[in-house]
Amino acid sequence: MAGCPTERKARVVFTPSGRRGAFSCGTPLLEAAWRIGVDVASICGGRGLCGRCRVVCSTGSFPKHGIVSSPEHLSPPGAVESRFGERNRPLAPDHRLSCQATIEGDLLIDVPPESQVHRQVVRKAVDSRPIRLDPVVRLHFVDVPPADLEVAGSDLTRLLDALYAQWGLRPTFPAALLTDLQGLLRAGGWSVTVAVHQDAEVLAVWPGFKASIYGLAIDVGSTTIAAHLCDLGSGDVLCSNGMMNPQIRFGEDLMSRVSYAMMHPEGSSELTREVRRAVNELVASTTAEAGVAPEEVISLAFVCNPIMHHLLLGISPVELGGAPFALAAQDSVHLPARDLGVEVNPGAVAYALPCIAGHVGADTAGVVLCEQPHRSAAVTLLVDIGTNAEVVLGSDARLLACSSPTGPAFEGAQVSSGQRAAPGAIERVRIDPVTLDTRIRVIGSKLWSDEAGFSEALPAQGVTGICGSGIIEAIVEMWLAGILTSDGVIDGEARRSPRLVRDGRTYSFAIVGDRIMVTQTDVRQIQLAKAALRAGIELLMDRLEVASVDRIRLAGAFGSHIDVRYAMALGMIPDCALDAVSAVGNAAGHGARIALLNKGSRREIESVVKGVEKVETATEPKFQQYFVDAMAIPHGPDDMARRATLFPGRVTRVAHTATQRPSRARRRRSKPGTAPPRASKSR
Amino acid sequence: MAGCPTERKARVVFTPSGRRGAFSCGTPLLEAAWRIGVDVASICGGRGLCGRCRVVCSTGSFPKHGIVSSPEHLSPPGAVESRFGERNRPLAPDHRLSCQATIEGDLLIDVPPESQVHRQVVRKAVDSRPIRLDPVVRLHFVDVPPADLEVAGSDLTRLLDALYAQWGLRPTFPAALLTDLQGLLRAGGWSVTVAVHQDAEVLAVWPGFKASIYGLAIDVGSTTIAAHLCDLGSGDVLCSNGMMNPQIRFGEDLMSRVSYAMMHPEGSSELTREVRRAVNELVASTTAEAGVAPEEVISLAFVCNPIMHHLLLGISPVELGGAPFALAAQDSVHLPARDLGVEVNPGAVAYALPCIAGHVGADTAGVVLCEQPHRSAAVTLLVDIGTNAEVVLGSDARLLACSSPTGPAFEGAQVSSGQRAAPGAIERVRIDPVTLDTRIRVIGSKLWSDEAGFSEALPAQGVTGICGSGIIEAIVEMWLAGILTSDGVIDGEARRSPRLVRDGRTYSFAIVGDRIMVTQTDVRQIQLAKAALRAGIELLMDRLEVASVDRIRLAGAFGSHIDVRYAMALGMIPDCALDAVSAVGNAAGHGARIALLNKGSRREIESVVKGVEKVETATEPKFQQYFVDAMAIPHGPDDMARRATLFPGRVTRVAHTATQRPSRARRRRSKPGTAPPRASKSR
Repeated sequence: MAGCPTERKARVVFTPSGRRGAFSCGTPLLEAAWRIGVDVASICGGRGLCGRCRVVCSTGSFPKHGIVSSPEHLSPPGAVESRFGERNRPLAPDHRLSCQATIEGDLLIDVPPESQVHRQVVRKAVDSRPIRLDPVVRLHFVDVPPADLEVAGSDLTRLLDALYAQWGLRPTFPAALLTDLQGLLRAGGWSVTVAVHQDAEVLAVWPGFKASIYGLAIDVGSTTIAAHLCDLGSGDVLCSNGMMNPQIRFGEDLMSRVSYAMMHPEGSSELTREVRRAVNELVASTTAEAGVAPEEVISLAFVCNPIMHHLLLGISPVELGGAPFALAAQDSVHLPARDLGVEVNPGAVAYALPCIAGHVGADTAGVVLCEQPHRSAAVTLLVDIGTNAEVVLGSDARLLACSSPTGPAFEGAQVSSGQRAAPGAIERVRIDPVTLDTRIRVIGSKLWSDEAGFSEALPAQGVTGICGSGIIEAIVEMWLAGILTSDGVIDGEARRSPRLVRDGRTYSFAIVGDRIMVTQTDVRQIQLAKAALRAGIELLMDRLEVASVDRIRLAGAFGSHIDVRYAMALGMIPDCALDAVSAVGNAAGHGARIALLNKGSRREIESVVKGVEKVETATEPKFQQYFVDAMAIPHGPDDMARRATLFPGRVTRVAHTATQRPSRARRRRSKPGTAPPRASKSR
Repeated sequence: MAGCPTERKARVVFTPSGRRGAFSCGTPLLEAAWRIGVDVASICGGRGLCGRCRVVCSTGSFPKHGIVSSPEHLSPPGAVESRFGERNRPLAPDHRLSCQATIEGDLLIDVPPESQVHRQVVRKAVDSRPIRLDPVVRLHFVDVPPADLEVAGSDLTRLLDALYAQWGLRPTFPAALLTDLQGLLRAGGWSVTVAVHQDAEVLAVWPGFKASIYGLAIDVGSTTIAAHLCDLGSGDVLCSNGMMNPQIRFGEDLMSRVSYAMMHPEGSSELTREVRRAVNELVASTTAEAGVAPEEVISLAFVCNPIMHHLLLGISPVELGGAPFALAAQDSVHLPARDLGVEVNPGAVAYALPCIAGHVGADTAGVVLCEQPHRSAAVTLLVDIGTNAEVVLGSDARLLACSSPTGPAFEGAQVSSGQRAAPGAIERVRIDPVTLDTRIRVIGSKLWSDEAGFSEALPAQGVTGICGSGIIEAIVEMWLAGILTSDGVIDGEARRSPRLVRDGRTYSFAIVGDRIMVTQTDVRQIQLAKAALRAGIELLMDRLEVASVDRIRLAGAFGSHIDVRYAMALGMIPDCALDAVSAVGNAAGHGARIALLNKGSRREIESVVKGVEKVETATEPKFQQYFVDAMAIPHGPDDMARRATLFPGRVTRVAHTATQRPSRARRRRSKPGTAPPRASKSR
């Protein structure tokens, strides 16, 4: 063979790992790679069936490695590679199956990402780490010796012995799989592909060679349920679908669902049935769209808030409805997917991320896993706003978490013209500080209301109401225009305008005619919500002894819609450089995907969650004080000027009232960046 | 306190273990016992609730131990012991709860059997070892700290922490049990009793204190299914019930059921459904009779032949219907009882003993576990006769097993007047060698047919047929009377008697009028069956290189009915001292009970079965020769005289024919007790 040194071994360098070794001529590349720990994938175990072990041979002189590499230093492609090309797509000209090509001279071999077992799965979010692919379930192709009257041992014994001989695995084999084993072995001509969980347990058996299995990352929210179907071999998301949580008919907010469970003997089971039915609908729709059989789904990862977590697991949520808010289980839960009634492969495994506390769920754990505050020296503030807001604050040194009882105002509930963020909802509001002329933008249209073609571009529903981000912008704009006091009073006397409408002893501000108004009560609701959120944040900052945070991440749908300048102007979140604040979308769902694709991440989040210090706002005396302090718009007197700088060039006409009280917390932390004195603890 | 030494520790000796130690005064007896490894039971963990730790204090001087013991050297009975007596039966005067009584002086303390964790469960069979009680599931009472807003951790965390603190256990907790956990903890006032499997997994949780859990040992035979309900705390059998296997409607013998499974697409599932339904009927009837709730049954152990084993597990038996007779699984099977559709506690665990080979099942493993041939230097022959006969031969040095294709003749099938052993069946036959007068006895009556009152004492059915043991006695008696040749020909010319009835070219012998006859075909069927059995035995003796066996155990219903003298005279079993031959009844079922009550026995039988050498009669060329040789009645010419001695005082008129061939095997082993020469192997 050309280039094969006769007296010395051939030198082979693998990239990108840089691992190198010397091998006798005739050694298959895959064997060589595995021998020195190079990460090359294979499902078929070197039989030229799966094509997962493809590599690229470089041509040329590589002085750094002291070798001259050439594709001619590999055995020429043989029958197995031809057959592989016929059965599948033909191999690219420079690709070889490393299980078939043997070493015949010095080589520089590149293992492309798609041939690596632990490839990096790139996520869409720009600033997020890629996921290292290492799922809990893997496929292994096995040749099993046929049954023979002369040889003792059952079909199972021979399968397990073959798994050990061919893959070094000694997994358990659940009795439930015995039912079909004999038929599958014979249907596959004494070859099967087995799915093995954690190298320890066989979950499923398919006849012959099988190339792909799938998993679902599922985010069970109070309002929506979202599922992401992933290829466990590549990490790719094949399909993402969402749907409304059908439990909504038992109550929009979680507490009404808990009440339902309390009041009806079968209430909790009914709620469990509904959420599981919805999960099954998503299984059906995502697999159908991706052209995958539900039986090919073998692994599931769930994130949920504590109440949805309990309902999904079939646990009554009533204990979470009142003090001491006892979780049945807090740690991560592993269970057979069939125990959740999920119609996927009967052997599929399900995993629910751990809950952090009675009010801070596995969804927040998912956000943490996604955003990794525990891996950075920077102090990160994570805020996930739903019906309540979960807040996580800290760094690699220490993490704190709490739930702030914001109520659903940020979701548009308890607001006179409020509605969920959906097409037709006002999401942007601008008020001319002089004329009080008001421009709006609605979800489903790119145009402002003063732009030509606005009416024509409206979604079919027209303008239906105002969503959380819209009402927040309206309130901040009213404050900037000087028609809202820092106390949150709509000052009807400040200006004469048809938009300022008297309503008994208070005023409302008309956004769209007299149909969509911001009433005094609406302002109060938003004030209460933002004060609750901010008080939670202040409480955690106080505990962590920091006066500022280095970066802020807003998770969830609300975080994606809000303009962070307005959130900051309202005082929802503390001061922070604007470019250090970002919305991270469905970070909880991303966390579920990470847990689905990387088993180490499960241990990571379990360990991080164990170390999170839970702060209970309900019993913390300081919370009440922080709450009262945070009612003002914006947050404390020194905030006002700073907030105004968020809107350069805008005239700020802020009305102060005698009731304005400076924030204690803010006073105390007059030097930003320094920790409050220890003595303050004793107050 | 009287007798309490002030300057030295008190000496305490526990019987029957003989363990001793010195303890500070005030130490509770139970704590002292546990500290030095004395086996004292407790479910409640020393709270005076379960009464399992009762001990007896001896009075007097014990020079051997150098102590004077007195009940006064214990703290006087207090409130807890009084309450225990009020809630349960009062304690016997000399009994104390060792968890309450503290050491106040030297003591000799007897731990009665019922207070030992690993007590010996005495079995009925006289020569069997007692079972050491050590079940896979145990109860543990736990006090759990109530939920507290100030203390982090879920209800589950607190339960598991309490289990560790109070019992040193760190079991897993299946997600399925989470559903009810919170309700149970609160219903039990923050005390629960948990059932823990192998110290490793919680199976069930009950509120408050629970004293007893139960298990079922189940023998699933082709014809009958038997269940024994046992108290897992005491080992006592509370109830045993049996029923016909409802699969009989798909075929009396196993092969017709396999055919049914082959011919019908849902046949195998139907058979599985039937056997599981029957198991559930037995669960219902045994628990109802014993006054136990099915939910209190937490552990099951099964023995079955390979085909019933597969059908019970939901595995199609078709592979067992033809060569190479591949078992799906051979090793023991552990699975949740609910996977078998058994309606007991949802967390209950099931265990099926391992199969020995494709024809030698877990039932034979049960016989081995019961009779322990592997623990004796004596060569034991175990024969379990059902539709086929399973044969195990060997000692602590080596064990061999095979299945002999006897067919169902020994069960009364394929015999003209044959029937199952049931009331009305002839089980005993005596023929006067001179007059050929014939006496019979039937199942259900103690009287011989020539005794007064025979007709009145008959069971309601009257005389319905002849069972396996009856036909064997009839044939041996015919041979003893000289009307049956060693070739098995009914010699109608030997005597003139109305009982010898011509039937074409052959004769029949009339047992009861012309209604119940032994025909020439009947004799042939029995000859074939006994030749198959004997050939299997000879094959194993040949392999083991022994010319005789030291003891013979006949298992199963047939073994219980047969008079071993007749079995030996017919040549079914080899020569052996009569007192070394015994019927062991349902040894397979006993084996299941051992596996249910002692977890070590599971490892024992798994290991023994792995070492058993399986001999395949179908492919063993010698088997055919042994089979032909064993057709003669009795077995070989030198046997005849020996056999006749089994019936001293009886005139033996044996007819020889020219076709009689001496047994090769017998010839070869002319010196009993010596191994055949190696050279014979080459023949």
